[in-house]
Amino acid sequence: MELDLARELAQEADTKIVLFVMDGLGGLPHPETGRTELEAAWTPHLDKIARQSSCGFTLPVGIGITPGSGPGHLALFGYDPMVYKIGRGVLEATGIDFDLQASDVAARGNFCTVDGEGKITDRRAGRIATEHSSKIVEELRGISVDGIEAFVEPVREHRFVLVLRGDGLSDEVSDTDPERLGAPPMTARAKAPAAEKTTELVNRWVAEATRRLAGKEPANSLVLRGFAKRPDWPPMPETFKLRAAAVAHYPMYRGLAKLVGMEALEVGSSLDDSIATLRENWGRFDFFFVHYKYTDTAGEDGDYDRKMERLTEVDAAIGALTELGPDVLMITGDHSTPATMGGHSWHPVPFMLRSKFGRSDLCESFNEKELVKGSLGTFPAKEALPLAMAHAGRFRKYGA
Amino acid sequence: MELDLARELAQEADTKIVLFVMDGLGGLPHPETGRTELEAAWTPHLDKIARQSSCGFTLPVGIGITPGSGPGHLALFGYDPMVYKIGRGVLEATGIDFDLQASDVAARGNFCTVDGEGKITDRRAGRIATEHSSKIVEELRGISVDGIEAFVEPVREHRFVLVLRGDGLSDEVSDTDPERLGAPPMTARAKAPAAEKTTELVNRWVAEATRRLAGKEPANSLVLRGFAKRPDWPPMPETFKLRAAAVAHYPMYRGLAKLVGMEALEVGSSLDDSIATLRENWGRFDFFFVHYKYTDTAGEDGDYDRKMERLTEVDAAIGALTELGPDVLMITGDHSTPATMGGHSWHPVPFMLRSKFGRSDLCESFNEKELVKGSLGTFPAKEALPLAMAHAGRFRKYGA
Repeated sequence: MELDLARELAQEADTKIVLFVMDGLGGLPHPETGRTELEAAWTPHLDKIARQSSCGFTLPVGIGITPGSGPGHLALFGYDPMVYKIGRGVLEATGIDFDLQASDVAARGNFCTVDGEGKITDRRAGRIATEHSSKIVEELRGISVDGIEAFVEPVREHRFVLVLRGDGLSDEVSDTDPERLGAPPMTARAKAPAAEKTTELVNRWVAEATRRLAGKEPANSLVLRGFAKRPDWPPMPETFKLRAAAVAHYPMYRGLAKLVGMEALEVGSSLDDSIATLRENWGRFDFFFVHYKYTDTAGEDGDYDRKMERLTEVDAAIGALTELGPDVLMITGDHSTPATMGGHSWHPVPFMLRSKFGRSDLCESFNEKELVKGSLGTFPAKEALPLAMAHAGRFRKYGA
Repeated sequence: MELDLARELAQEADTKIVLFVMDGLGGLPHPETGRTELEAAWTPHLDKIARQSSCGFTLPVGIGITPGSGPGHLALFGYDPMVYKIGRGVLEATGIDFDLQASDVAARGNFCTVDGEGKITDRRAGRIATEHSSKIVEELRGISVDGIEAFVEPVREHRFVLVLRGDGLSDEVSDTDPERLGAPPMTARAKAPAAEKTTELVNRWVAEATRRLAGKEPANSLVLRGFAKRPDWPPMPETFKLRAAAVAHYPMYRGLAKLVGMEALEVGSSLDDSIATLRENWGRFDFFFVHYKYTDTAGEDGDYDRKMERLTEVDAAIGALTELGPDVLMITGDHSTPATMGGHSWHPVPFMLRSKFGRSDLCESFNEKELVKGSLGTFPAKEALPLAMAHAGRFRKYGA
């Protein structure tokens, strides 16, 4: 659904929607047993909810498309990930919970190694340790160019974020990363006349930073890419007339939620912490995005058994979640991360929605094989929120 | 399918298509039995057809979207309801079978109550009886402004339709309804320069009408909204190369059918009347839209048992319909109206299509649980007619 139409149809109501996201939920059959992580895990609570729900699969971006965390979540928040795109600089800043202002310009940085002629010999500076990287970042913090503030923040290993803050900055600045070995870092170019001032500032910052890095192999140079400003999107609370909160511990997901206008609540790292935060804030919001990270981590590590255990851990906590009595409960993931693949994948993601006004299906349990019997079929993830809005009595009729 | 493509593919053939619409067909489980109206109803004929049909669900407008009668039917006639929209004035005129001309401008009117200062105290004039309203309408019929004909017709209770007829009229006229209490009816404004003359006529008509209503509480004033002209859409007979007829008793559905170029046949109010009309006109047309209203009425009234009985009533008449031997028979609804909700809903609508060239599915009966096994899945309602066209041998090959 287009956001304009959502805005037209949305109305306030005294109902609560919970979107529970198990990151990387979807899986693939184990080569020996033929069973996916969800099929193998002991999940009596999830299975019970499946029997009371409308079931199916979400398609995060499109058939055959493996989503990053950004598109996967934006879709679940109702934003078409083919339309609402986040620049790499912004995603990186978001991922470390950097509080980007509307006029800031952020870029993703890599420390790299250059030879005597200035040509890149290692694009990741030997993947230096994060602690090492943090120390180098300290030395780059003092650089001042023309009264513009330049924030430098470490991310992980050789990666960092550069954020320029000041008036009249533009993000139409080309990358300095040649993205190949044997070439020197490039000089940034303005992609539009309005970006000439910013481009000059970037090049001056890079010149001074490079001077300070000289001789400090392996991180004796740097490259920048993905200059971007914080997107100016229709906020979710206004579009969907929802007071929306994020219960997410990891900065990346808090940041994504904030980009669409959710309030990111303070929360600890465990599932119990999430439920407690949910309970404490139950009266203040209409919509809760609850994020559980560790299913994805286990999948990324290629650890089938651990992913299975994580699913069982979630299942045990589901009772406390349902006791809060949401009018609409959605349980799904942002994408699939099959342990057998050790990474994100394009496979549709298990989904169920429970509400008083839902049709119940013939699914006996919550897993990839059984959900094929669901009435929702495989549908775009961006339609999950509109579907929840309808079940929550928060959409008025279309046309007379 | 875009109508342009339909026009390109359509060819004549000696085949007949019947679209049988049970208004508000789709339902939800009864809270005690867990069975939907269709599951609970005795429908041996419909169930038999389901075993011989390609089955699934239509999605009238989109996921989570609750359609009004207009969009719900337009979709089944092959018109994308997100593209082909009907102004409220036209829908209202259509609903009372008013024969709108292409240059007419129609508006929906409400009688209302104003206080001594002219501020609205009741937006519906106490929902005065239709008979009362009809008498007031009589008094407004004589108003003449500048040689423009002004038709005033009662609708129901406090509602009426105003139709202006003359040359050079525009529907770019703003509402006079402030849509809130405590404010006076507004003066109409031209939304485009070409609408200035029409706007002036509207305001003069309103001034005279308001003068005549003065002192006649509770209907001592009026408001107008949804100025609109009859849409100028590609007619269905030309686009799909079909001689198309509507067998519908209620003015609203006859009107909608006429808007897309169908011939609305004279027909009584019972299902037997519909079948008789169908039989009498069988040779004259290729496509028949047959409308059955009472499933929706029962659903709107929240009467589960009556909706169930209505379904059984339909089932008993289905034999006579199939005896006519349509090449393609589609049985579906324009939207869902679950009795448990007492109103239209967003839920996909049961659908089946029987034809000599159809795949048959594993569905044993015609209801919301069983149709999930259907091969058609959940598909946009606007694709139902193209699907029928194909099965009727009325679409040529696409590309060489």
